[in-house]
Parts: sequence; structure tokens; C-alpha cells
Amino acid sequence: MRNIKLTIEYDGTNYHGWQIQPNAITIQTAIQDALTKITKTQTSIIGAGRTDTGVHAAGQVANFHTRSQMPLISFQKALNATLPRDIVVINAEEVSPDFHARFSAVSRCYRYTILNRAYPSALLRSSTYFFPESIEVRDADTACQSLVGKRDFSSFQRSGSERINSICEIYECRCWQDQDLVYFEIEADAFLRGMVRAIVGTILKLYDREDSVNQLHKILDARDRSVAGASVPPHGLSLLRVKY
Amino acid sequence: MRNIKLTIEYDGTNYHGWQIQPNAITIQTAIQDALTKITKTQTSIIGAGRTDTGVHAAGQVANFHTRSQMPLISFQKALNATLPRDIVVINAEEVSPDFHARFSAVSRCYRYTILNRAYPSALLRSSTYFFPESIEVRDADTACQSLVGKRDFSSFQRSGSERINSICEIYECRCWQDQDLVYFEIEADAFLRGMVRAIVGTILKLYDREDSVNQLHKILDARDRSVAGASVPPHGLSLLRVKY
Repeated sequence: MRNIKLTIEYDGTNYHGWQIQPNAITIQTAIQDALTKITKTQTSIIGAGRTDTGVHAAGQVANFHTRSQMPLISFQKALNATLPRDIVVINAEEVSPDFHARFSAVSRCYRYTILNRAYPSALLRSSTYFFPESIEVRDADTACQSLVGKRDFSSFQRSGSERINSICEIYECRCWQDQDLVYFEIEADAFLRGMVRAIVGTILKLYDREDSVNQLHKILDARDRSVAGASVPPHGLSLLRVKY
Repeated sequence: MRNIKLTIEYDGTNYHGWQIQPNAITIQTAIQDALTKITKTQTSIIGAGRTDTGVHAAGQVANFHTRSQMPLISFQKALNATLPRDIVVINAEEVSPDFHARFSAVSRCYRYTILNRAYPSALLRSSTYFFPESIEVRDADTACQSLVGKRDFSSFQRSGSERINSICEIYECRCWQDQDLVYFEIEADAFLRGMVRAIVGTILKLYDREDSVNQLHKILDARDRSVAGASVPPHGLSLLRVKY
């Protein structure tokens, strides 16, 4: 069987996240349905990151096994012709039989984008979080950088989610501004559910206080979701890339 | 009566263009309805450019007269709270009584954005025209620049539209590339209906032929829409700014 790796861009606005669910339209369902139609065989697909409802992806990665002999470029074209326009396959490549989009990944990188000005945007309304309060970007960046390393992130895990191992290693975490847009980018070996949105929401509410790095680490040490800040909404978040 | 000038950003995807029409939802209708609700008086608004169905705006300008004493910032906030999220007032200012958004304008500038790569984009699908064929950007730019000046543009006027004066003066016209995106920008004193989309569509089909500038000017001189190329679709077009 061939093992094919896809890189996928999607606008998550109209989907209940990546993962298959009963009675809800998800990205995984849409791609599996398209693959099943194209290969005429029930085909399932493994994703690198389970993005939540409303979260986007610029570079989600997934793989599937198939007996189809269709050339890669035809797979990509057939998928893009079959999928709804808010899901696009940007690359298709053949990988070794043991490649697993989720377990082979060494890191995932998420970006959170904030529109930071006095009035909202019509054109960016689905891809940025409109936050008109002032942001001390330099302080936010310092707080971000203090998260690099291996830590227990249970304070930033969505309550109700049951991940036994809540240790994640953050490789890079930064915040910067480009005109009206403020970006947070976090690269880690793994993420807990809702982790990026909880971290960004917490930092946004910390920045203007003295000693924000210590405060952030007190929240981390508490290992209790209720001490961290409210999560920012999903539509500012995008799975940027996955490394193997 | 106060005369208030608004600068407006909109995603034209779900509208039948700017101008009021019976039995169709337009941007002008949406804004007038919001103003009427806010001021509790039937209020009409004058727009600088009549964008077509599906065309966007980063900086449409409009004005309206009102007896309301509401501060400008409250007008802007009330409008943004009342309008659907795909229409945003980015600025509101008081102007002299004789200011007329359409007749006082000295120029309008439109931008057309093309996604020029082998596969489409999920995130840019509503704001760019996916055109996978190669574009000779330098030649397209030369053709663009040859349009600067005062000319009869009836070859690029939508058939069926009845503008008596088809002379427009183009102040600036250029084409450039930034990674996967190719931009066309045209600034002129006035535009005929469908003019930008007809010019871009024509240039896209000219570029690879020798003597493209002469060819373009032969089309201009014909003053006949049927000799020009097919128009590119509306969703790549945006009214960028209006000068007074």
C-alpha cells in the first residue's frame, strides 16, 4: 500500500474542527469523503493536530494509505476539485510506510493573530481576533519567551479534557507586532487541548502588571485551569506547520 | 445639518454591490438601514464608487447629512455595532456642507489581486482570483503603464452600461508581484462600469504576445467592448481608496 502525506490549508469557520464526530461536519470527514469518492474505496486519514471548532490551518499534515496508482499531482487536483473551497490540498507526497502524521511529528507550530486597533475589520473578521485594548508587545514577548522549555501545562488545558501526560516542551514562543496585527507563535512537541488560546488569553491579561513573568509561572505551577485567564476565541488561531 | 464622511471597509461576497436595488441586499442599503435605526430618521447616503456585486472595499467613502448631535466616535461605534460584521466603518469625520462623496472625489484607486500558483487557497478564496497560468509581470506592468493618461475607455466598458462620457484619465496603473500574489492597481479620475476587470482580463491574455503595448492600444482605439478580453471575476477586486 502507498502511504501519502498531504499538506492542507483550511478555513475552519464552517467546521466543527478537524476530528470526525457524529452529527457534525469536520475537516477530517470532508477529506475522507473526498478520498473515498476519488479512490472508490473507504479511506481513512490521520491528522497531525486535532484543531478545534473554528480553528484554521495554513499547514495541517495528514496521511492515508491507498492501493490507488493515481499520480500524486492527480490526487492533489482531484482532491481540490472534490473538496469544498474552504479546504485545499497544497501538497501531496509519497512517504515511507511507517510515516504517521501524528506520531512521527516532532513539533507543531501554531499562530494566533490579533487585530489590535480601535475598530474591527470586515475583511479579516474570520481570521483575526479583534481586541481593541492596548497590548504591551515587548512585555508579552518576554512572557512568551519565558515559557520555552519542558513544563507541565495543566493550567492551560481545557477543563474536561483527559490527557494523562500534561508535560509539553515548548521550542519557541514569541509575540510581535506588524502594524495593526499582533502575532503569537508557539512551537512545541505537543499541545494540550485549548493550550494556545489559554496561554494567549492569560498573557493578554498579564502584560500590564509588574512582574508578569513571575505571575505567569505561578499560574503554571498551580497546575489548575481555573487560575489562568480566559481563552481567546478560536478564529484567531491557525496551525501553521508540522515538522517531521 | 451636519455632513458626515465615512470611510468604509467591506467584504462584498454576500452583497449585490454598493448601490441600492429593489429585491437585493446591497452595501448602501445595509448602511442606510443602520443609520436610520441609529438616528431614528430616514437617512440616505452617497457613495464615492458604485462597486459591483462581489467587489470588496478597503476604503470606500460615503457621506450623509444628519441633524443628530451624536459625537463622531459614537456614530462610528453605533454603526459598527449595528452593521453586519462584513461591513465596518473605519473612520467618521465632519466635513463641509458642500462635500459630496461622489462629485468631490478627484480620484479612486482600485486593486485587483491574483493568486498565481498551481493550487488554490482556502483562506484567500474570497479576496483573490485563483489564476494558475504563468504571468509575465514585467510585461503586464509595461502594458499597465502605457495606459496612463486621458483616453476613451469604451472598449473596457461593460456592454449594456450607458455612460455618455467614456473618457477617463488614468493617473497611475501598475502591476507587481509579491510571492504568490500578483497585484494590479489603477488610479483614475473616474471608472466606467467593469473597467478594471476588463483591463486586467485583457492584459492577462496579452502579456505573452510580442508587441503587447501596441495590441492593447489597438483594442483601446477600437472603442468596442467585443475586441477586448474577458473580464476577470469580481472577488479579486477592491476599492482601495478615494482622494478628495
